[in-house]
Amino acid sequence: MVIGGDAAGMSAASQALRTAKANGRSFDVVALERGRWTSYSACGIPYWVAGTVDGPAALVARTPDEHRANGIDVRMQTEAVDVDMDRRMVDYRDRSTGQTGALPFDQLVIATGAEPIRPDVPGADATGIHGVQTLEDGTALLDRLMANDPKRAVIVGGGYIGIEMAEAMVVRGLDVTVIDKAPEPMTTLDHDLGRQVHKAMEAMGITVETDTPIEAFENDGGEVQAVVAGGRAYPADIIVLGIGVRPATSLAEHAGLVLGEHRGLRVDERMRVAGADGVWAAGDCVESFDRIARTFVHVPLGTHANKQGRVLGTNLGGGDATFPGVVRTAISKVCDLEVARTGLGEEDARRAGFEFLTATAESTTKSGYFPGTEPLTIKLLALRPDGRLLGAQIVGRTGSAKRIDVLALALWQQMTVADLAMVDLSYAPPFSPVWDPVLVAARKAAEKL
Amino acid sequence: MVIGGDAAGMSAASQALRTAKANGRSFDVVALERGRWTSYSACGIPYWVAGTVDGPAALVARTPDEHRANGIDVRMQTEAVDVDMDRRMVDYRDRSTGQTGALPFDQLVIATGAEPIRPDVPGADATGIHGVQTLEDGTALLDRLMANDPKRAVIVGGGYIGIEMAEAMVVRGLDVTVIDKAPEPMTTLDHDLGRQVHKAMEAMGITVETDTPIEAFENDGGEVQAVVAGGRAYPADIIVLGIGVRPATSLAEHAGLVLGEHRGLRVDERMRVAGADGVWAAGDCVESFDRIARTFVHVPLGTHANKQGRVLGTNLGGGDATFPGVVRTAISKVCDLEVARTGLGEEDARRAGFEFLTATAESTTKSGYFPGTEPLTIKLLALRPDGRLLGAQIVGRTGSAKRIDVLALALWQQMTVADLAMVDLSYAPPFSPVWDPVLVAARKAAEKL
Repeated sequence: MVIGGDAAGMSAASQALRTAKANGRSFDVVALERGRWTSYSACGIPYWVAGTVDGPAALVARTPDEHRANGIDVRMQTEAVDVDMDRRMVDYRDRSTGQTGALPFDQLVIATGAEPIRPDVPGADATGIHGVQTLEDGTALLDRLMANDPKRAVIVGGGYIGIEMAEAMVVRGLDVTVIDKAPEPMTTLDHDLGRQVHKAMEAMGITVETDTPIEAFENDGGEVQAVVAGGRAYPADIIVLGIGVRPATSLAEHAGLVLGEHRGLRVDERMRVAGADGVWAAGDCVESFDRIARTFVHVPLGTHANKQGRVLGTNLGGGDATFPGVVRTAISKVCDLEVARTGLGEEDARRAGFEFLTATAESTTKSGYFPGTEPLTIKLLALRPDGRLLGAQIVGRTGSAKRIDVLALALWQQMTVADLAMVDLSYAPPFSPVWDPVLVAARKAAEKL
Repeated sequence: MVIGGDAAGMSAASQALRTAKANGRSFDVVALERGRWTSYSACGIPYWVAGTVDGPAALVARTPDEHRANGIDVRMQTEAVDVDMDRRMVDYRDRSTGQTGALPFDQLVIATGAEPIRPDVPGADATGIHGVQTLEDGTALLDRLMANDPKRAVIVGGGYIGIEMAEAMVVRGLDVTVIDKAPEPMTTLDHDLGRQVHKAMEAMGITVETDTPIEAFENDGGEVQAVVAGGRAYPADIIVLGIGVRPATSLAEHAGLVLGEHRGLRVDERMRVAGADGVWAAGDCVESFDRIARTFVHVPLGTHANKQGRVLGTNLGGGDATFPGVVRTAISKVCDLEVARTGLGEEDARRAGFEFLTATAESTTKSGYFPGTEPLTIKLLALRPDGRLLGAQIVGRTGSAKRIDVLALALWQQMTVADLAMVDLSYAPPFSPVWDPVLVAARKAAEKL
């Protein structure tokens, strides 16, 4: 029994059946999905809202019927409402008919995902305030954009979803204001790099209000009119919430499963839920082990959901696989400004008690003389005194951010900045300066030791 | 005393002075350069010839006068003609005046670079046959393009220089034929990926003749008219040689220094020439240690020249640095087709006696539904039975090739494909599919073990 029909749950189900088949075994898989879609790219929603990509069908990797053809009994619009661990039963409710029922399970996969955090302020339930978590959210947002011809968008929160939705609204031609309670947007970056993002967004015509906590939403007959924040009212015809998500684990908690400090399920490397026999979990509802901070973190990203689902399914199907944890790599963009990060930021490193140095390099995406070369900034954190890499951040224009992968791998491998500075990375004028920006940053950090 | 004023030599000189200064020491540095330019990007020449970038001045990172301002006594158009190791003197000749002289040295840096291989066939000295090694070569080539309005270009050799010059000639509007004696162009790739390059180049309108050895150049009154190859004459108004370079080490050999099997100088990790006290070398004239094949190789690339020069200079100036070797990472493109490689190809791996598997993944540069997503192919070689990565190759359209860096680093760190498949690489729809192509390839290889 799988609860949740998106990336983690359906990857797990598919992989379990594949592995079982390869091992000459078989079992029945029932998957309950409360929504109307399976296996979709939630990460694509901002681009669908922008009109950059088609949706919603184009964002679906595998439909319910495709899963059924693979032998998975997918029940759509079917919400698990209670899990009885003693009787090993799941109570469900069909959201289209209201019908309820119960299904037994031997093994249970919890893949209930995450839910957007809604600000706990007056008026937060007005019409016109949108989350961006499911394809249904995307449809609702686009319906409003099409029907109401809104002029002013306010994005609450300047994180990944915030900047991606800011881009979407800019592309749609709206006046865009991003409001964040933090001193700079993109708080997964350090302040100095967040400042660069702030300035770049303003140069794109986006109003960015920082140090500005949300206080209320004003409405007129239930229709949102303005956001009150930092003592001021910001008129808005449409509001997008980008203040993060939390693990959707109330069902699991109610079933008596123990949650971690971020309210995510704690799983071992094989994706088994701690202390519960025959219960597995993957995706946005679990906490992942941060290999650098050596703590559990909540990183709701499709890439982890897919990997974890696959690992879970392999083990469930009788194979052997492990999920080795995360280093909190993330990448995004707002128009042509790209941002990426991996590992620890300054505050993370201080909290973890590390003695560290930082080094920031300004470089370019191609040889300086090559047409289309773009500026980028790479900031590194390295442990003192040995120089082991602790984290990296990139802000730059087109062609910058994907370079984070080399740094994520260096971090993963616990390399020192001195060793990294001498690695044989590729060079040709259309692809990088003769000293690749990653090497320049690593060298700069090594010189500070 | 430094012989050679390009990347390796001048990096060495600059870094030696910097390090010495930091250590409170000082010494005199004389640098002899036989040409008219110092510290330039030879890799930029094809793009200068294409008209994509300016030149030659824009390709110069640091002029003789800038080096002089940093305290280096640069002697231009001054060719070292003999090195006397016993008396520790260098005989030189001023190429502008014909004047000769001799200079003493305590420490000698050999950075004489590489020289293009010219085919040993009749007629190879005709006018209109061009190398692409120095800025002077670039000037000569452009002069001919401007003065003679040539229509038909033949590129001899389908390696990096060959495909880059093919692009340049296509951009200039010439009919382009690339002739290679090998079964496919880009012999640093395996045949299957070379085949993709071959087909893509033909689709660009470039004629690619493989299995076709050069036999002669025909000329009329000294002006080249055609290339005879594989028993056929290919008419040509301009010919570009791209059949590789060899270390320019005759001076060093004559001085009694021992060369390696590729005729490059053998240096230790600190860039000291083996068996010669106070003699150093860096750049295209040395052989480098291949960390995967565990042999010495000749890899004439600006990135190594710069790193080696810097390491050399640090040690010469009283510091401590090591050059850890290469994994033969390389990257290039022909129009919008990008190619990259690192580590061993199939033939290399067989020669090294490795038992290995190969896995090839077809993926895309962005999420499949994202505008501008482009196809790419990644091929991996992994050791049996443990799955340690041995090599990687990429062929794809814009946005493909720089991903080789992650694979180069994985190789450098001796990772297995199974471990690589689970690394926390970045994902967002504008940057990669949810399973990054590198992870897909690694997973495919791991599944074959």
